[in-house]
Amino acid sequence: MQVRLLRYTPDPELIIAAAARSTSSPEPIQEVLKSLSPQNVARLIKGLIAAGHLSPLEHAGFTFSLEGLSRACSHQLVRHRLASYSQQSQRFITLQDLKYVTPQSITSHPQFRARYHQQVREAHQLYDEMVKAGIPREDARYVLPSGLETNLVMTMNARELLQACALRLCPRSQWEIVELFERIKTEVKQVAPTLGEELRPKCYKLTYCDEPKSCGLFPTLKETAKAR
Amino acid sequence: MQVRLLRYTPDPELIIAAAARSTSSPEPIQEVLKSLSPQNVARLIKGLIAAGHLSPLEHAGFTFSLEGLSRACSHQLVRHRLASYSQQSQRFITLQDLKYVTPQSITSHPQFRARYHQQVREAHQLYDEMVKAGIPREDARYVLPSGLETNLVMTMNARELLQACALRLCPRSQWEIVELFERIKTEVKQVAPTLGEELRPKCYKLTYCDEPKSCGLFPTLKETAKAR
Amino acid sequence: MQVRLLRYTPDPELIIAAAARSTSSPEPIQEVLKSLSPQNVARLIKGLIAAGHLSPLEHAGFTFSLEGLSRACSHQLVRHRLASYSQQSQRFITLQDLKYVTPQSITSHPQFRARYHQQVREAHQLYDEMVKAGIPREDARYVLPSGLETNLVMTMNARELLQACALRLCPRSQWEIVELFERIKTEVKQVAPTLGEELRPKCYKLTYCDEPKSCGLFPTLKETAKAR
Amino acid sequence: MQVRLLRYTPDPELIIAAAARSTSSPEPIQEVLKSLSPQNVARLIKGLIAAGHLSPLEHAGFTFSLEGLSRACSHQLVRHRLASYSQQSQRFITLQDLKYVTPQSITSHPQFRARYHQQVREAHQLYDEMVKAGIPREDARYVLPSGLETNLVMTMNARELLQACALRLCPRSQWEIVELFERIKTEVKQVAPTLGEELRPKCYKLTYCDEPKSCGLFPTLKETAKAR
Repeated sequence: MQVRLLRYTPDPELIIAAAARSTSSPEPIQEVLKSLSPQNVARLIKGLIAAGHLSPLEHAGFTFSLEGLSRACSHQLVRHRLASYSQQSQRFITLQDLKYVTPQSITSHPQFRARYHQQVREAHQLYDEMVKAGIPREDARYVLPSGLETNLVMTMNARELLQACALRLCPRSQWEIVELFERIKTEVKQVAPTLGEELRPKCYKLTYCDEPKSCGLFPTLKETAKAR
Repeated sequence: MQVRLLRYTPDPELIIAAAARSTSSPEPIQEVLKSLSPQNVARLIKGLIAAGHLSPLEHAGFTFSLEGLSRACSHQLVRHRLASYSQQSQRFITLQDLKYVTPQSITSHPQFRARYHQQVREAHQLYDEMVKAGIPREDARYVLPSGLETNLVMTMNARELLQACALRLCPRSQWEIVELFERIKTEVKQVAPTLGEELRPKCYKLTYCDEPKSCGLFPTLKETAKAR
Repeated sequence: MQVRLLRYTPDPELIIAAAARSTSSPEPIQEVLKSLSPQNVARLIKGLIAAGHLSPLEHAGFTFSLEGLSRACSHQLVRHRLASYSQQSQRFITLQDLKYVTPQSITSHPQFRARYHQQVREAHQLYDEMVKAGIPREDARYVLPSGLETNLVMTMNARELLQACALRLCPRSQWEIVELFERIKTEVKQVAPTLGEELRPKCYKLTYCDEPKSCGLFPTLKETAKAR
Repeated sequence: MQVRLLRYTPDPELIIAAAARSTSSPEPIQEVLKSLSPQNVARLIKGLIAAGHLSPLEHAGFTFSLEGLSRACSHQLVRHRLASYSQQSQRFITLQDLKYVTPQSITSHPQFRARYHQQVREAHQLYDEMVKAGIPREDARYVLPSGLETNLVMTMNARELLQACALRLCPRSQWEIVELFERIKTEVKQVAPTLGEELRPKCYKLTYCDEPKSCGLFPTLKETAKAR
């Protein structure tokens, strides 16, 4: 899997902070933009997130190239609806090189590793023959496994990144989508360090774990009640 | 594939028409609701759609049970973001009975039909063995083919149904999602006949085909220009 | 101000609970719908909200008639973007009866009460004369005050109701929009008592107040830290 | 009214074209980005819009400073829900300088011009006295007229800009919001000329006018039928 930040709103943290500040300022944002120090910006962004005043975060957009995700993972990903996706089509591209994701639990299992590879190769082989025989690609792909790789271009604004990471950086999520959002966080931190630092599982905001069982980071409410 | 309308906003066409009418009426909607005849309602709905005044259509919601779609199809479907989905999880359900979609182009192909069934069965067999050996379901499923069936509950309002059908009832779409929206249209027509009738490919609104090649229903702009 | 629930998805709590349950059930939702007792439904809904698994709440929609809101309030309201609105137009309706909202702080102020009423009446008088003289309504209304009443039809699903109430039932919100959502909550409780009960300020989920100053319901994080 | 483009996704047209191309390319978008000439980019963008394949347009975001809109206009504007707004608050800012919009139809009317200015000044005077006497700003503002100016920061992606302009550049819209989107179009054209050119009333896509009465740019369907 490879994640690259392709484009983003210039000065993402400054524009967020200035937009937030401008709502309670008689001055237009152009003046506010000039008056904010980097320290102001960092403090404002942390303050917005702490207080749940998230709408100014929408002014900063981030566009990523996501390469080598399984289609199992991309199917989960596109359920985040406040985002924009352009995904490689299996209808218009004939699959050439066979690239697919193998979960660690299978790789580390001597008995199944070889059979998994074999099974995927055979599926690809049949796909290949069907396409060559004139079966439409959009039909031939029904035989292809969910582990097959796909590429996407994805744009999310900072608010949606915050919400998506709150869910997907929680260890209850599947390992592949956790890995995806960890890489996204790494990319965001390069250009927006304060915001990037705030991309964290939801328990940091809640100060407790609201899942049935805690991973240990924060206790559940039940555990807190017992501890008293 | 099975599509059933489970629940919907009562009197869906009346509420749309009354909401539309209330925007240019000094009376509150309660009075408007009483004053509209079925003929008024039908005429108002056709008028709204013809004039592209679509926001009142959002007041009527429709909740469907969608059974037996391929995951290839559900991946396309959930790209419609102004809708709500609850999809059967491959992480929390162990796949028991093997149900999958076979495209007609494969069924009708003696050479590939048997191999397709065989390939899918073998993938399921490997999945089954892996799950029994303790590989997590969420990992074992990477071997499962895109043709595997899934169930969803989907809610769309009438405006989004109109937009989705405009795209998906166009023969340029893939056959499985065309079939899905044809069934959705059939269900909607039972309870909202005027609205259901308006669920049509986008060319009806445009009065021309904006795809590279027309299916014959309406000519493209190039073809129209030539004909003059 | 008057709030009436006009229409809603039938059995709203049952459909939410069944949709949630169906994601981890091999059975289609039709079977799940039959198997859920009212106790199951209530427990499932509380569980979904406690765990932040909110997407199934989107399957239940609620359509309200909102009468007699100030335009100051409706301007705030329509900032909730995951909802549908049909608002009385000042462009297409000539304002007849003068109806407007007077804040309590003005009513209770002998010095200003009379002047406020006078001022609003004069604005309306000028509007009236301008319209009669042929000034377009859409221009004449620029003189009308923000306190003027408006009517809307609004549809929100249960998830958005939960989010909007989390913000707007917090006493940091303006009194008029707090009153609006209290009336909305009262209406929802009539037909969906478990869900209605859960429409509460955000601090109930957080277990603390994330605003700069607490109203007393829950302490802020700073206050909690000090108390230890 | 002043409209300034504050920030935008760098190379907005290139990123749109490359994202679109990447969906039917086996190469990742990084390679596609390098291979597109300016001519390719312009042709691709026109093609996407002509064919209604609009989702790649979402990858380019534009953030504007909007100064000196009337609150009547901002109330209309924020009804575009697929956009982000940070608006000057009348709850947290005490109105100092009196700035307001006067429609041309009033300015040009000797009888009403003076009375309009007088009326607005008196409303502001009463607001001022109430705030000084301790009435909360959020209540005092109920007396303020709809013509009062407000500032916003707004972010829209290229797809939503296209849709909003399709509606708001139609002369059926109110003059103030038409003027707003004309200025937005001017700003966009500076940095994205092909896209900016495509920001046009909806009739250009339809090839006819779908409003009850045409402004003359394109005939209605009825008029077309008669002409035959």
